[in-house]
Amino acid sequence: MTAIDLIERKRDGGRLSTAEIGWLIKNYTSGSVTDYQMAAMLMAAYIHGLDRAELFAWTDAMLHSGDLLDLSAIKAPKIDKHSTGGVGDKVSIPLAPMVAACGVAVPMMSGRGLGHTGGTLDKLETIPGFTTNLDPNTFARILSDTGLVLGGQSKTLVPADQKLYALRDATGTVPSIPLIASSIMSKKLAEDLDGLVLDVKVGEGAFMESPDQALELAETLVGIGQAYDLKVVALLTNMDAPLGREVGNANEIAESIAVLAGGGPDDLVEITYALGSEMLQLAGMAQDDEAARRLLRAAVDSGAAMEKFAAVIEAQGGDPRVLDHPGLLPKARYQQELPASRTGYVTLCDARNVGVAAMRLGAGRERKEDEIDPAVGISIVAKPGEQVDEGQPIARISFNDEGRLAMALPLLKRAFHIASIPAGQPPLILGEVRS
Amino acid sequence: MTAIDLIERKRDGGRLSTAEIGWLIKNYTSGSVTDYQMAAMLMAAYIHGLDRAELFAWTDAMLHSGDLLDLSAIKAPKIDKHSTGGVGDKVSIPLAPMVAACGVAVPMMSGRGLGHTGGTLDKLETIPGFTTNLDPNTFARILSDTGLVLGGQSKTLVPADQKLYALRDATGTVPSIPLIASSIMSKKLAEDLDGLVLDVKVGEGAFMESPDQALELAETLVGIGQAYDLKVVALLTNMDAPLGREVGNANEIAESIAVLAGGGPDDLVEITYALGSEMLQLAGMAQDDEAARRLLRAAVDSGAAMEKFAAVIEAQGGDPRVLDHPGLLPKARYQQELPASRTGYVTLCDARNVGVAAMRLGAGRERKEDEIDPAVGISIVAKPGEQVDEGQPIARISFNDEGRLAMALPLLKRAFHIASIPAGQPPLILGEVRS
Repeated sequence: MTAIDLIERKRDGGRLSTAEIGWLIKNYTSGSVTDYQMAAMLMAAYIHGLDRAELFAWTDAMLHSGDLLDLSAIKAPKIDKHSTGGVGDKVSIPLAPMVAACGVAVPMMSGRGLGHTGGTLDKLETIPGFTTNLDPNTFARILSDTGLVLGGQSKTLVPADQKLYALRDATGTVPSIPLIASSIMSKKLAEDLDGLVLDVKVGEGAFMESPDQALELAETLVGIGQAYDLKVVALLTNMDAPLGREVGNANEIAESIAVLAGGGPDDLVEITYALGSEMLQLAGMAQDDEAARRLLRAAVDSGAAMEKFAAVIEAQGGDPRVLDHPGLLPKARYQQELPASRTGYVTLCDARNVGVAAMRLGAGRERKEDEIDPAVGISIVAKPGEQVDEGQPIARISFNDEGRLAMALPLLKRAFHIASIPAGQPPLILGEVRS
Repeated sequence: MTAIDLIERKRDGGRLSTAEIGWLIKNYTSGSVTDYQMAAMLMAAYIHGLDRAELFAWTDAMLHSGDLLDLSAIKAPKIDKHSTGGVGDKVSIPLAPMVAACGVAVPMMSGRGLGHTGGTLDKLETIPGFTTNLDPNTFARILSDTGLVLGGQSKTLVPADQKLYALRDATGTVPSIPLIASSIMSKKLAEDLDGLVLDVKVGEGAFMESPDQALELAETLVGIGQAYDLKVVALLTNMDAPLGREVGNANEIAESIAVLAGGGPDDLVEITYALGSEMLQLAGMAQDDEAARRLLRAAVDSGAAMEKFAAVIEAQGGDPRVLDHPGLLPKARYQQELPASRTGYVTLCDARNVGVAAMRLGAGRERKEDEIDPAVGISIVAKPGEQVDEGQPIARISFNDEGRLAMALPLLKRAFHIASIPAGQPPLILGEVRS
């Protein structure tokens, strides 16, 4: 077996056996299959696809490319949530403490921002002292102590995916359903979970722009879970506009804290409760959606969810005083308002343009190795459906660098559409797929 | 413009502009576009193809990736010949001196063997002292002095192709008509030629296995030549069986010398004269095929062709005494005969299996960086159409290593088919394409 034989077969639209895919992923992880050979394979797999057996083999080979977490000492049901990535998507941050406060163990393993989408780890690290770089033992200990942990992927967990993800990002092979699905599920299967809730984003600001694509991805993800006896629920949610009003890092933490305090923008609250409800039901903590939402609401109203967040911040080295004093979060030096170009209704606030604008400001990464600026970001003053007067602010930009502001502004302007009559807004939750 | 934008466009079946292809090839040559990005692009281009404008842009960008030869001081018409590669294809070696002896300047720039096909440079270097590594000034001087030069490609000539060829070889993206055509023609266009004769091989032992593919490649090559006002003639020739009786390096030189001496196997002689005739006609040295063949025959019969070969061997540092004393060529330590498994007629001697067997013996390279053994090789005793008796030798193997012999023998056995009645043999020359 040589890499070239396998590449040629996939190039010509053929299929690879389970043993061949295992060999390929193993030798790519060790370095004896080169990046350029894997790049050619990824492009061939992107164009010709992977069938069901190939997809399962690919996922399994990735899963076994490194260590697996052992969380068997934790008695509570272990449920994680994963989002395919959007703009302003800080849901994990209020969601994890709310669900943990209801008695579910939440071993949340998140990623960093890339391109126009933000990353939970980047946001959490704006909390002074907070570290997400946890070795597997520390990860398990914090989960055991607080019922909740918010970490990054350790280097020994699914190393094949860490290499493959960087390579896909540099070779135009990211938005392929089998490659996305195997990447997500190999990491989640390595976490020793009892259940998984997926937020599959659909729309202009998501990797999957059409509902059909998103549905196919959701079904693929749930199908892989089924093959491993992992209970999976996927919600398809709208990502035409940013979620909530804040896009950035420190400002998204502030908005997350608002949700835990019982406030926050409607769309963000709705998605958080919908996903939380699924997590509680998967954990067997609630019989139905209504009961689950009651539990979540009680965790917020009692302050238990906020206390849970304080506990995990403290356990991960952060300063929990930010919960009462948001002024402790990094703050940009300058602010500028974007005025409405006319009087009317906001009909569109394009998530992709807002996301790229935030990246240009420094809130995100163009390349994996870029540093982010935790303080900068965009606040959406007028969301789709809301009325504005000409000259009144529709967005507020927090920035540290005039040059970056100049690169971000045209994109942000382009993101907003204002019309004289309001347009109907699409539903937030577009569908669901269950095991 | 970023590499990823261009990769994504080609991935989705779109087309690249001339400026974009120029940017890509330039930045790949300089190293700012990485091997893994180019590997993804090559696979996308392999699968979706390049249209005519893209093909011309790709060829032109390669052509201008380095220096161009300046042979304007040479007054004689400059004609080169290029073969797409086959097994036992030593035609260039007798052909170049024969044509040069008729007054044509032959700046022959050849390659090395890879996979099952041999390379002219490897064969020439079995002549003691002969060097093919010539800087452009030496290349031009030898051509001017002797009317003939047999060199490799200098590092400054079409460097994009040198990088791309190695990458294609490692990523399963070799047999693509636009990629093959741009690779061949960019190198030939850099040689400052007045005419070019192409030997496009068709069959089991060639990159193009079907006549349709070979015809498409030939038309593509001739079309690129036309765009640069270069006169090109392509002959499609059969490569189901090895050409001549010798496959290896030193033994192919001995067989080439036999052709220059007026002997040699019929098929090798026929292809050599057919290509030589086209070269003389392109050079304006002969009005028609008959006149051209008369000139070639006279160059052989008079000894002028052999003298030309002696002169170029001497000019390139080699020992011309090999022409009279083939015993000066490297000789393998051991020989073994392959006996016929039955009495009958050889109906097939599969070029690919013979080529791979020779490679396994050490005559060729599995990878570009492998060393070759100049002495080992295979002599075909019974060619297709010839009669054999059970137990009589059908091939003779010259080898230096028992382990390599053991790897080569099964392939060689599989190459020969013997039947009780003779099978018709395909014509040697299958077609032609002219500007």
